[in-house]
Amino acid sequence: MARTQGSHSDITGPKVRDAALRLFARHGYAAVSMRQIAKEVGVQAGALYNYTPDKQSLLFSLLKGHMDDLLAAWEAEPKAGDALARLEQFTRFHIRSTVKTPEAIFISYMELRNLEPENFAVIEDLRGAYEDQLEQILRSGAETGAFDVPDPKIATMAVIAMLTGVNTWYRHEGRLSLSEVEGIYWDMVRKSVGG
Amino acid sequence: MARTQGSHSDITGPKVRDAALRLFARHGYAAVSMRQIAKEVGVQAGALYNYTPDKQSLLFSLLKGHMDDLLAAWEAEPKAGDALARLEQFTRFHIRSTVKTPEAIFISYMELRNLEPENFAVIEDLRGAYEDQLEQILRSGAETGAFDVPDPKIATMAVIAMLTGVNTWYRHEGRLSLSEVEGIYWDMVRKSVGG
Repeated sequence: MARTQGSHSDITGPKVRDAALRLFARHGYAAVSMRQIAKEVGVQAGALYNYTPDKQSLLFSLLKGHMDDLLAAWEAEPKAGDALARLEQFTRFHIRSTVKTPEAIFISYMELRNLEPENFAVIEDLRGAYEDQLEQILRSGAETGAFDVPDPKIATMAVIAMLTGVNTWYRHEGRLSLSEVEGIYWDMVRKSVGG
Repeated sequence: MARTQGSHSDITGPKVRDAALRLFARHGYAAVSMRQIAKEVGVQAGALYNYTPDKQSLLFSLLKGHMDDLLAAWEAEPKAGDALARLEQFTRFHIRSTVKTPEAIFISYMELRNLEPENFAVIEDLRGAYEDQLEQILRSGAETGAFDVPDPKIATMAVIAMLTGVNTWYRHEGRLSLSEVEGIYWDMVRKSVGG
């Protein structure tokens, strides 16, 4: 039988993911049981296994989904011109993405330790692919002399950490708008690579 | 009776803290029981309560101890001359401290959510006091025109996040020595504030 739109699975799947994300971010993966996730969704514990084989698969699916979404969203950005323009684009994109998904970012750093080795390897590859996007921008700018970046790999890690850190203090109701925050960080990122 | 040096409590106290730090960093605070900590130390669960009233006190004591040590170590540094020299000093100090205590840094970010409100407030104050050290350096450099920092508070958060991020990738056996890493980050930090 053809799968119908809006089926039970289509509706509950995202609910299961949302509940798991919220509970993992709040209590930590190891402290959360499948029973708690089921309760949060409002289904029987047994029903949860229609959506995910186990808790590890759920964690992996959350972290992979987050990285897939991030890479797809970056891919979908209209590519700016030169390295400087692309660096500004990456800076603003990363801050906006980070602020939009604080719980996913939090568990992406915190729960790597709880991924089984083969799952960890997949997530590491995806993170590497994302970091490569910035590294390529820095390398291309360094080649044309637009940037002064002696070690593009380290500079990549430094810039991403700086930008992701916005999550530790940014509040939507705070004294600065997101666009002002982006502007301040862009100024610092640009200068940090001699652009 | 006078307390003798090397008493049971003197020896086991640090062991309890080390075990708790290791287990919290590995599994997360919520997933670790006092019984597990006792087992890791090699004492009966009941004996643990000679050292700490409960798990929350243990977490608080770890996070507070970490911040107290960090502030004391910074205080003990011979103060460098001008704002640029002090910024370099802070940059190298923060990277070295971060790399020395990766587990404490990890739980300092991750387990804030598990501190009871009054404990959270104490840790937040200590973090604020540490951040103030950098903010004052940036402000004093901005006042003399040594730095171009439109928003010293945000610049403080940006620089600290960048430096702390070393922990996500630095390995002692990696291709760069710690001193080389410090040099690369110092170059980026200096440029990022227009120094």
